[in-house]
Amino acid sequence: MGGDHAPEVVIEGAVAAVKEFPGTHVILVGDESRIAPLLKKARYNGPDISLQPASEVIEMCESPANSVRRKRDSSIVVGTNLVKEGKADAFFSAGNTGAVVCAATLALRLLPGIERPGIAIVMPSVKGISLIIDVGANIDPKPVQLLQYGIMADVYMRYILNKPSPSVGLLNIGEEESKGTDFVKETYELFEKSSLNFIGNVEGRDLFSGKSDIIVCDGFVGNVALKVSESVAEAMQIFLKRHLKSNPLGLLGALLLKTSFSKFKKDIDYAEYGGAPLLGVDGVVIIGHGRSSAKAIKNAIRVSKEEVERKFNEKVIEALSHKERVA
Amino acid sequence: MGGDHAPEVVIEGAVAAVKEFPGTHVILVGDESRIAPLLKKARYNGPDISLQPASEVIEMCESPANSVRRKRDSSIVVGTNLVKEGKADAFFSAGNTGAVVCAATLALRLLPGIERPGIAIVMPSVKGISLIIDVGANIDPKPVQLLQYGIMADVYMRYILNKPSPSVGLLNIGEEESKGTDFVKETYELFEKSSLNFIGNVEGRDLFSGKSDIIVCDGFVGNVALKVSESVAEAMQIFLKRHLKSNPLGLLGALLLKTSFSKFKKDIDYAEYGGAPLLGVDGVVIIGHGRSSAKAIKNAIRVSKEEVERKFNEKVIEALSHKERVA
Repeated sequence: MGGDHAPEVVIEGAVAAVKEFPGTHVILVGDESRIAPLLKKARYNGPDISLQPASEVIEMCESPANSVRRKRDSSIVVGTNLVKEGKADAFFSAGNTGAVVCAATLALRLLPGIERPGIAIVMPSVKGISLIIDVGANIDPKPVQLLQYGIMADVYMRYILNKPSPSVGLLNIGEEESKGTDFVKETYELFEKSSLNFIGNVEGRDLFSGKSDIIVCDGFVGNVALKVSESVAEAMQIFLKRHLKSNPLGLLGALLLKTSFSKFKKDIDYAEYGGAPLLGVDGVVIIGHGRSSAKAIKNAIRVSKEEVERKFNEKVIEALSHKERVA
Repeated sequence: MGGDHAPEVVIEGAVAAVKEFPGTHVILVGDESRIAPLLKKARYNGPDISLQPASEVIEMCESPANSVRRKRDSSIVVGTNLVKEGKADAFFSAGNTGAVVCAATLALRLLPGIERPGIAIVMPSVKGISLIIDVGANIDPKPVQLLQYGIMADVYMRYILNKPSPSVGLLNIGEEESKGTDFVKETYELFEKSSLNFIGNVEGRDLFSGKSDIIVCDGFVGNVALKVSESVAEAMQIFLKRHLKSNPLGLLGALLLKTSFSKFKKDIDYAEYGGAPLLGVDGVVIIGHGRSSAKAIKNAIRVSKEEVERKFNEKVIEALSHKERVA
């Protein structure tokens, strides 16, 4: 029921996923009276999609903690409970991010050694892809929690994104070790003592430069950085169009540009990489962009499947148990 | 002596400024043996440019506080002292930002009622321009200091950028009043009680949307946001080129795009708007991007002149004296 185009695109994405990824079973959680006809319309009546009724919906603007407590029969609460009860291996939602974080943390609890969950996002860089954590789950973290994010991102990069020995950078306002707030400096020290492949501070300009495979930051800064990225791309398109339209040859350029821009916007849309994994909870949870397309939802289901099959959380627990990593 | 292309472009910019803005006198501060021949080469020998020797240079990577204390004959320290001594009305540097902030604060002191200086930056938005403060002078501010930034930005927007009754937004991770850290929530309350045209929280995506004329944030977040913007534009150019080159018509598009991109990059380069004013110090100080072009330096001189002539600092003191604004 979550996302700007729910439940239509969610159902489309689910149908595409069970067709493309054999052995996948999707449980659609939500308002039966709306889902059933749409599923029919999507021409799917096989055994790989089932329905779990949930009578309530947590809206995008609702307060996460309150709504999760109050709406016990919302699709988000019912969905995370399916994972808790072992009836599902993973949960995906393109709905209220804060509510997903809250419901997942309450229902699934955290992995041993993890103090807070973090949202990671796969972003394209000029060198390939990078993983940014946290982009909004934890806006007032402690240094050790950022280290825990670094360790989980390292495992994610290795086992889900197939990148051995990923480099880790700490988002700061300068490259020098002496830069930043006391919070960032303390975090720097923890990373330096860890056995991660820590390359030091990275800056806002390195978000897309590929300087480090992983970028660690607090959820406030990460959220602003992510939203600024989206904003620049949109503004750039508007500025370029205006400029191209101001000369006759430019009109042709604008036309040629149109498809490239859609391609680019897809490239930087994290949904295309399968949504954003919520790392640190004892279960597999993926959060989708509100604007998730059917393709993005299909990819999110693929990534969930990979996280489950490749035993991501077990690998995290293993990594945390290596003392030298955390001290 | 500061900036990637100093002293060449600084001299070019100064020569352009005195020619274009009658009544302007520029004092070039730095290594005479390098500046004098370049000034000759720039074919200027009029009375409107003079030279103030300074034997030292604070490099980009040096620690601000230490270098300002140690290098008393650096161009930055000598330059800010000229303002302190009343021998200059304004100071511009494209050098080490931290050192400029530090030297200016030490030499000029702060305006009464201002606890910390802040760097403001003019950015293009799809609706016109917006002013973001702070982008790096104060990375661990108190809420009341952000309010002081808001008041100074309001005055700047009115008297320097000619925008009456500018709207003020607080950079946060969501629009709702309940969003954000305790620090941001406390700041929100102060703004709401002020007589500024406060429109509430704005998000990272509003950096270019023009939702508010002024965006207030702490220097850490502001710095990351600014650098992310620069980074996205560069990455986007690379991504688009790659995509355009993958089809034959695209090659033509790439060609047409080239000038538009340079135009766009200039549009979002704050240097084109005359550098970034350091607000809150008792004097006029403008900080240029390290990559400042001669045109950017010329514009910075124009803006300095406007700040002086329009008595910006007096207007700030006036605004701060209105009790209802700060309580």
